[in-house]
Amino acid sequence: MRNVGIVGIGQVPVAEHWDRSLRDLSAEAVISALHDAGDPNPGALYAGNMLAGELTGQENVATLIADATGLLPIEAIKIEAACAAGGAAIRAAYLAVASGAHDCAVAVGVEKMTDHFNDAVSSALATAADADYEAGHGVSFVALNALLMRRYMHEHRVKREDFAPFSVNAHRNAACNPHAMFMDEISVDDYMASPVVADPISILDSAAICDGAAALVLCALENEGTFPKPAVRLAASSCATDTLGLSERRDPLRWQAVADSASTAYKQAGIGPIDIDAFELHDAFTIVSALTLEACSFAEPGEGVRMATSDAIRREGSVPIATMGGLKGRGHPIGASGVYQAVEAVHQLRGTAGEAQIPDARTVMIQSVGGSGSVAVTHIFQT
Amino acid sequence: MRNVGIVGIGQVPVAEHWDRSLRDLSAEAVISALHDAGDPNPGALYAGNMLAGELTGQENVATLIADATGLLPIEAIKIEAACAAGGAAIRAAYLAVASGAHDCAVAVGVEKMTDHFNDAVSSALATAADADYEAGHGVSFVALNALLMRRYMHEHRVKREDFAPFSVNAHRNAACNPHAMFMDEISVDDYMASPVVADPISILDSAAICDGAAALVLCALENEGTFPKPAVRLAASSCATDTLGLSERRDPLRWQAVADSASTAYKQAGIGPIDIDAFELHDAFTIVSALTLEACSFAEPGEGVRMATSDAIRREGSVPIATMGGLKGRGHPIGASGVYQAVEAVHQLRGTAGEAQIPDARTVMIQSVGGSGSVAVTHIFQT
Repeated sequence: MRNVGIVGIGQVPVAEHWDRSLRDLSAEAVISALHDAGDPNPGALYAGNMLAGELTGQENVATLIADATGLLPIEAIKIEAACAAGGAAIRAAYLAVASGAHDCAVAVGVEKMTDHFNDAVSSALATAADADYEAGHGVSFVALNALLMRRYMHEHRVKREDFAPFSVNAHRNAACNPHAMFMDEISVDDYMASPVVADPISILDSAAICDGAAALVLCALENEGTFPKPAVRLAASSCATDTLGLSERRDPLRWQAVADSASTAYKQAGIGPIDIDAFELHDAFTIVSALTLEACSFAEPGEGVRMATSDAIRREGSVPIATMGGLKGRGHPIGASGVYQAVEAVHQLRGTAGEAQIPDARTVMIQSVGGSGSVAVTHIFQT
Repeated sequence: MRNVGIVGIGQVPVAEHWDRSLRDLSAEAVISALHDAGDPNPGALYAGNMLAGELTGQENVATLIADATGLLPIEAIKIEAACAAGGAAIRAAYLAVASGAHDCAVAVGVEKMTDHFNDAVSSALATAADADYEAGHGVSFVALNALLMRRYMHEHRVKREDFAPFSVNAHRNAACNPHAMFMDEISVDDYMASPVVADPISILDSAAICDGAAALVLCALENEGTFPKPAVRLAASSCATDTLGLSERRDPLRWQAVADSASTAYKQAGIGPIDIDAFELHDAFTIVSALTLEACSFAEPGEGVRMATSDAIRREGSVPIATMGGLKGRGHPIGASGVYQAVEAVHQLRGTAGEAQIPDARTVMIQSVGGSGSVAVTHIFQT
């Protein structure tokens, strides 16, 4: 396999873009990433997207983006792995370049969610769960995560307020990110006072419904010199799965796909958790952050929440997470989130993360998780 | 890039499977393909599917299939390119193996369409067109193809009955395929008498709404010896795109993505159209067959229909198409069709196509087309 790197990044601010279409948002992100890479001619475009069929009435999204960006007759394919679609699109582009099929490829993630009432969006998001055995009985996606949070609080004897630092940290970091949806810091009191969505999950435990698009340009490292900016190396790329339904798992608090995907990535990169300078994890809910830190060997079972209360997750801590706001603060446009994570990782490694910069960042891990931990895609970036 | 071959195939009969779920159909196809390949342990599964989100309320389909087939914690990702999703899933599996990321991978295509009223299915299918500029104005997918057929008849001065041989040939071949939906031969009179769907397209111009699943096991050719059956070699794999909307094209009768994808595939395989022993084309409508034969250099513009009337497309002809029924006769379960084509190509090359067998078949081309010719995926198989 050829070594692969990222030589261009582009993103639109995550927001409620009432006045902009899926086509418009994704085209801006792709064109901006191509411009950052010196306007090369990529051979393929892989689009991470989950909900355009349900919400916009638009499948064939990758062709739409290739068309809108003037990249025809480029290879263009949509990649879907529920909320992990963004990470999966990066992986598709990685394999296309690593294989030698293309010297340069684009990974783009896009989601347009705000043109619809929340009920419609909740129904669409529930398609990430098991239609026959979960969603079919009326359980929403946030309710599944509420079950996990309640169970975690019971098993590990922690309280709701112990999850607050995840949200406080995300918002603190988002305040340094001009592309973030929520550039406002919050306090623990704000967290505790925020309205409940599905007990014990409140609004400030949850990533918001939003719109966004982000894009990467990947190339074979052997051609790095033909691009204006030095490449950020993709040191690892992996994907793993677990049961679609939560009820099928021996221990619902053990996120096995996340663990498998991370351990494969550590092996590929020849490193361990201690070598990670920043970790853009999938903090769609605060409980997901806790379970992820444990599954990825940053913490023992039950200790994920304590990492947060100990401040280890802050930019100055031992395992900075959500360094530019994460899904909670920057926003979680589902199929785009994994690509936003990558854009932010590249900013950290280029030293262009502004006030959110982690000093001397050399190794950044990003992770997209789909369903209730049923599919996980992990990438490790290095300078 | 490593050379890649197919060492296992599986399929369920295409039908109206009122009593079977998407999970059930796809699991049977995958397990059957793995069994055909000597039950190896694949490293990844790529699922071609277009409509499960809209019709079944199920995204995250690849994880569902990995779970249902006992393949966890395998990498599993859904691939979508409208009606070309099946071909695109094969391409994803091909790249994963060619790159060296996996030694063995599964490509599966599945679609479950018959649990819904035709209106719902028509709306879902229209998501392959441009939501803003085509489907949003009420044009259905069959209507777009009717516009193409009407234009073709006008430009090339042919009549509706000239398209009949495509349908007659497909049904004749389907009668030899026990997995086909329509095992009944039809006559030109049947074709002419069939009810109009969108003038000039009638029922016997169109592939039916149906359910199905098919699967392939791909491996690196260097490991071919570890599988019970000889591999069928993937001599070419390519994807190309054209404008999403028909109205944006200089000549709507010139299917440029189909042409680009085929010419790239010819180049990769080092062959030309004359070397193709059988061509499983995307005959979702008879007009698509005519335009495809022209775009793939089997016929000059306007001569595609004449190829049919001259019997060149029959099993005994110079360019046999739809040799086991095609989308029209075998059935067109959208995201599965490309994988069915591959299964049939392998049968032809193994010499196990039964009554549908093309004598001495050595080179078979298959092609999946999404939207109104907006995305095309072509593969060439050789013994």
